[in-house]
Amino acid sequence: MNACTFFCLEVNILANRKDVAKLAGVSEATVSRVFNNIGPIREETKHKVLQAAKELNYHPHAIAQSFARGKSNNIGVIVPYLPKIHLISTHYFSELLSGIGAMLGESGYGLLLLYQSQDEQKDYVKHFLSHKVDGCIILGSKNAKGEIEALEKLHQLNLPYYLVNQTFSGYPFHSIDAEHDQGSFQAVSSLVSKGHERIIFLNGPLEYSNSTERLKGYREALLFNGLEPNSSELIFQGNYSRKSGYQAAAQIAPLLPKARAVFAANDRMAIGLMQGLSEKGFQAGHDYALIGYDDSELSKMTSPSLSTVKVPLFEMGQLAAQKVLHFISHDILAEKNERLPVTFIERESSKL
Amino acid sequence: MNACTFFCLEVNILANRKDVAKLAGVSEATVSRVFNNIGPIREETKHKVLQAAKELNYHPHAIAQSFARGKSNNIGVIVPYLPKIHLISTHYFSELLSGIGAMLGESGYGLLLLYQSQDEQKDYVKHFLSHKVDGCIILGSKNAKGEIEALEKLHQLNLPYYLVNQTFSGYPFHSIDAEHDQGSFQAVSSLVSKGHERIIFLNGPLEYSNSTERLKGYREALLFNGLEPNSSELIFQGNYSRKSGYQAAAQIAPLLPKARAVFAANDRMAIGLMQGLSEKGFQAGHDYALIGYDDSELSKMTSPSLSTVKVPLFEMGQLAAQKVLHFISHDILAEKNERLPVTFIERESSKL
Repeated sequence: MNACTFFCLEVNILANRKDVAKLAGVSEATVSRVFNNIGPIREETKHKVLQAAKELNYHPHAIAQSFARGKSNNIGVIVPYLPKIHLISTHYFSELLSGIGAMLGESGYGLLLLYQSQDEQKDYVKHFLSHKVDGCIILGSKNAKGEIEALEKLHQLNLPYYLVNQTFSGYPFHSIDAEHDQGSFQAVSSLVSKGHERIIFLNGPLEYSNSTERLKGYREALLFNGLEPNSSELIFQGNYSRKSGYQAAAQIAPLLPKARAVFAANDRMAIGLMQGLSEKGFQAGHDYALIGYDDSELSKMTSPSLSTVKVPLFEMGQLAAQKVLHFISHDILAEKNERLPVTFIERESSKL
Repeated sequence: MNACTFFCLEVNILANRKDVAKLAGVSEATVSRVFNNIGPIREETKHKVLQAAKELNYHPHAIAQSFARGKSNNIGVIVPYLPKIHLISTHYFSELLSGIGAMLGESGYGLLLLYQSQDEQKDYVKHFLSHKVDGCIILGSKNAKGEIEALEKLHQLNLPYYLVNQTFSGYPFHSIDAEHDQGSFQAVSSLVSKGHERIIFLNGPLEYSNSTERLKGYREALLFNGLEPNSSELIFQGNYSRKSGYQAAAQIAPLLPKARAVFAANDRMAIGLMQGLSEKGFQAGHDYALIGYDDSELSKMTSPSLSTVKVPLFEMGQLAAQKVLHFISHDILAEKNERLPVTFIERESSKL
């Protein structure tokens, strides 16, 4: 069994699942759905499938167990490959990786950084099949073509994985996330409490669930405070880079006389915007209020210092690594999803 | 040969080396020294060894070639494990890793981050033996117990590796470094040119060659400018952390009335010192001149902005990865060592 190839593993698994389906009188897909807890399933069907599985001694964890014999002692961390970007130097990725690394360093596991280019076909299972990793953590995941299929494959094979900072609604994927709707709600409420009624929102791309959550929090804060959720003319979109914040200044500057508060979805965009607007004669904390997001080291050092929302990225990385290691050693998951709290931090840029 | 264990590989190699030694009438150690270019060797001896090797068809790269059959497609990056430190979030490690990652991402290799705790016995060869890596890059290496032995073992087996930002004088280890003596020379000369004759130097630990090189540059700049190299009372040592810079303020503050210029061996210590001295009533750029080192993102954002020395860490990481990949694919090295230039950058903190 040690020399068993992928082919024979697959055949074994499929044969067993087929047997269970036949005995229970359901489709193979239904067997998968029962074991992976996907979608609504009638109690009666569930009972039939579990009964058949018991009789046939069918274990959906078999693939994972087989892989365990060829342990690599590495945890794969999948990150986007963006040419010429100093990816690891960004607060976001460096803190997540530091947290993952701190946990793996203690455990004796290696951290295998796997770069994935955007046009490459997504396939996370291949890293398990080639015995490169015993588990994986996916950073920078987004709702894009091929991503959900790749995650479903990983999930259905019961391989140890976690998404970080991305949730797909309607899917049972394992993820460690933060309460971004709450963070956004707190930031916008703080601006409203200072009398701002028209609040500009510079968001990131909506393929990221953390962007859609920030948008949700923005709208909820306005509604909660008795304001109409603003029309789309106050909502802009960058790509989380400093440059995109800088460029947004051209569109945002003309609005400032009437809307004197801006909430940006991360610190990098906020700092870029601060610079762009400064060149046009608008000073943050004086001519307009500005709040960023992440609580990066830079946010403390800008002038004026940047109000922001602290996201526990290091702890999220630690927790994801801990969960994957636990999955590997116990072959079960206690909690599939966890959302850590975030905290609004007021500094000078929004004290208007 | 595919299923060959470490044991039989070792026996093969030793047998061959022994044969060469016997035929050439020299010791096995001499054979090693010839092939690894270690220490002075008489031309006559070298010729005898090479002739014998040719006759016996002895290839010192055999181990590396055998490993190549069990390729992992990973490059190991060895970093120190420091509990609770956000290691990857420091400018130094994040830029090196970004550069390594950028090069590996292009090449399809994975970056395997391997943490090594300080008290663990150093053994870099084991990662090759377990087929975890095809090559390795060592960051944060220092002249400490066990390190040289571990590197010699790696080097003698002709395995693809590079040290980054550390050189061991008298050893033929492959390394990518920067001209830290020059950087230090430029920084200190700039202070002298402004009339400072007594220059305080806050260095890092001397186990790092880049610390000893900065000390060399500091002394040379004083001598070159007709000043006596200062007595040891002006030289202090931190550990490259912000905290150690902050703590050094207690010792440095009493000297400021007479010595109004400080050169710190990295930006983190400089920023810590800036904060510590500010609390004691001394403002950088006003009461004393301060220069850091690294050109981290933070150095541009302090108030006053920090004069510093730009080190091409991203490029050093890229180059190390490129060299290791070249070694793997060509089984030879064009250049064993390279030192990239650094640049002094004057900002407000030293304009006194």
